[in-house]
Amino acid sequence: MSAIADRPEATLEPMMLYMGRRAREAAAGLALASTETKNAALNAMAARIEADAGKILEANRQDVEAARAKGRDAAFIDRLALDGARVAAMAKGLRDIASLADPVGEVMARWRRPNGLEISRVRVPIGVIGIIYESRPNVTADAAGLCLKSGNAAILRSGSESFLTSLVIANSLSEAVVSSGLPEAAIQLVPTVDRSAVGFMLGGLGGAVDVIVPRGGKDLVGRVQAEARLPVFAHLEGVCHVYVHEAADLDMAKQIVLNAKMRRTGICGAAETLLVDRKAAPTHLAPLVEMLIEAGCEVRGDPDAQHANSRVKPASEEDWPKEYLDAIIAVKSVDGLDEAVEHIARYGSQHTDAIVTEDRAAAEAFLARVDSAIVLHNASTQFADGGEFGMGAEIGIATGRFHARGPVGVEQLTIYKYVVRGEGQTRP
Amino acid sequence: MSAIADRPEATLEPMMLYMGRRAREAAAGLALASTETKNAALNAMAARIEADAGKILEANRQDVEAARAKGRDAAFIDRLALDGARVAAMAKGLRDIASLADPVGEVMARWRRPNGLEISRVRVPIGVIGIIYESRPNVTADAAGLCLKSGNAAILRSGSESFLTSLVIANSLSEAVVSSGLPEAAIQLVPTVDRSAVGFMLGGLGGAVDVIVPRGGKDLVGRVQAEARLPVFAHLEGVCHVYVHEAADLDMAKQIVLNAKMRRTGICGAAETLLVDRKAAPTHLAPLVEMLIEAGCEVRGDPDAQHANSRVKPASEEDWPKEYLDAIIAVKSVDGLDEAVEHIARYGSQHTDAIVTEDRAAAEAFLARVDSAIVLHNASTQFADGGEFGMGAEIGIATGRFHARGPVGVEQLTIYKYVVRGEGQTRP
Repeated sequence: MSAIADRPEATLEPMMLYMGRRAREAAAGLALASTETKNAALNAMAARIEADAGKILEANRQDVEAARAKGRDAAFIDRLALDGARVAAMAKGLRDIASLADPVGEVMARWRRPNGLEISRVRVPIGVIGIIYESRPNVTADAAGLCLKSGNAAILRSGSESFLTSLVIANSLSEAVVSSGLPEAAIQLVPTVDRSAVGFMLGGLGGAVDVIVPRGGKDLVGRVQAEARLPVFAHLEGVCHVYVHEAADLDMAKQIVLNAKMRRTGICGAAETLLVDRKAAPTHLAPLVEMLIEAGCEVRGDPDAQHANSRVKPASEEDWPKEYLDAIIAVKSVDGLDEAVEHIARYGSQHTDAIVTEDRAAAEAFLARVDSAIVLHNASTQFADGGEFGMGAEIGIATGRFHARGPVGVEQLTIYKYVVRGEGQTRP
Repeated sequence: MSAIADRPEATLEPMMLYMGRRAREAAAGLALASTETKNAALNAMAARIEADAGKILEANRQDVEAARAKGRDAAFIDRLALDGARVAAMAKGLRDIASLADPVGEVMARWRRPNGLEISRVRVPIGVIGIIYESRPNVTADAAGLCLKSGNAAILRSGSESFLTSLVIANSLSEAVVSSGLPEAAIQLVPTVDRSAVGFMLGGLGGAVDVIVPRGGKDLVGRVQAEARLPVFAHLEGVCHVYVHEAADLDMAKQIVLNAKMRRTGICGAAETLLVDRKAAPTHLAPLVEMLIEAGCEVRGDPDAQHANSRVKPASEEDWPKEYLDAIIAVKSVDGLDEAVEHIARYGSQHTDAIVTEDRAAAEAFLARVDSAIVLHNASTQFADGGEFGMGAEIGIATGRFHARGPVGVEQLTIYKYVVRGEGQTRP
């Protein structure tokens, strides 16, 4: 690989375009593959990952060593490092994907016209998915599996620091794909760490790539969203709110707020802002803030929150749109549902927002008016997850306003075509 | 308007961004508007168009005069010119849209999780639609009506030659919208003929526009597809095929081919290439070619077609991917379904393609393997139309692989969000 990696960019573009053409050809075959063939391939991929665990762990050892030598921090190393259990989890993930329903071929709607034409809207794969990810080598297997199940060819661009691991994983997957009779180019890893490969992918490889999925931090997603010349499945950040309405049950509010903020602070569905209705503040604000502080959460609040507890730090304007991804929360009291909805529209990220209330009408108003991919009533924002939605694995969560919002699973990796069956009809 | 049109571009960008912000605000209101309110607005728009017919026709007279003075051809003038009947058709179109089912709020799917969470996927408007069109002033009313029904704000960019007409129509529509209690900025016409306004729209107006719909010729659509930094609903061209399979009924094939090519030659669903299976050629090729020539169609054929009829002109490699939009057809004999499918994949535009055959298995293979937005068995390609699909009006036909393919009606102008109802669930 180093031979390719060392060549100047002039040779990279034709190679990337060639990968794109091969992916497009593979997509044509994958689109027609039977569910049985795809599932057999996914199970073969899982078995191959298990059989190649030694090679994968050895490559990963080198990646981890290089990352340590570069001074990468513990969180980075944790995302990068594999062990036997993590390799086994990758294989299990592929088998779980095999067990999902196949979305391809599903007749989404069917109707007959007065002239006798029968029109069906049938799910088909999108085509070619480009996945650009950072130092989580397991994305190689997860993304490849979801793309294959949904009949899409995948072009994978691994982060440079997990490159060796990803390369070994991708080779194992490819061998299993070929042995299952599916096109080898169903899964291709960009065989270079040259960063300009990302630029070519964002340009669409001459129309060969249909959608880009970035998996990684805000810098990566922001770059992809800014530069991509094709659709992107992504969320830049998850500035999720819990709004405790005046008619909220305090115990339920405490449980939901604690879970939404503290269950895991580093995921995109973690709550970043707590809005407490001013009418509920006298009874609810102090206990909620106290609970959060006792749980080890830093609270940055408006004057009302500061009055409720002397350990609350003053919030500034920068706190309201902030995605902490940490044990920190911004707390604000609001004058009723209108101000809550406006605050979320102004500072939120259209990801996931929740209301806690016993008032059904208020809940329905919130659910209708908050324009986010996921809105919840009396449930934790941390349910923002394809697995929790029952969709099986997800390739990410999207906050765009096109094609798919919320968790992107195998169904969201499809589009449709119209199949029209006639008996000789012509148009008058 | 000329005062704005004459200002330098420096003042255009802030104006365009302001239009974008107003559209986004209007979209928030439109998304929550009831079906009754939207339908009342659509009917009011229709009534207002009728009441303002005199003003509209006077503005159109000026547009037509200016276009004639510029030496525009008869086809151009025909697209541009309105008369009483065409104004009435615009009003009827708006009432027809009022009578369509409202897609917004539809629960597309609903399921309950083992933990009791009830998850619904609910249709919501996309948000803000930018429509860029050429000299067909009726697009102003059609596009505005479809966007309003689907709860989207519309930013309309009229071609410069229909600008005066479009302006009067847009003003009439806006007055009706306001009188119905909906936001004035639900429908905005870019109030200048400055072409750089298009560039700003293609940039998305600071994230305010969610999707662009170009309506017009190939130059316009090509520019929009090449330059847009956001999703586009469009088809660049319709290189539609009719494949007459070896098991085709000759009479049916003749009717379908004649209709697909000659009913209207200038629409995107018109057939441009006839593929005749070599096994059917001895019986079918000569009659099909003869029929087309007798109907006034120029036939450009491969050697087999030339042998079948001396009036067939030789086809060159440029004919296969050609969208004639005229009474011309390319004819080729192919060795079976495989070659037909490969020809369509290589030269087609993924718009609409048909097979004529009595062999059901061959038909199903064609329908599965041809990767076009619309595939038909034993029916004319000219059915590629939202009205013919029973979708009511359409804003265009899309051949992309994202969000919507085929006719784009009110349903395709929506996206969804997830509404999750709980009773205090937290994530373990």
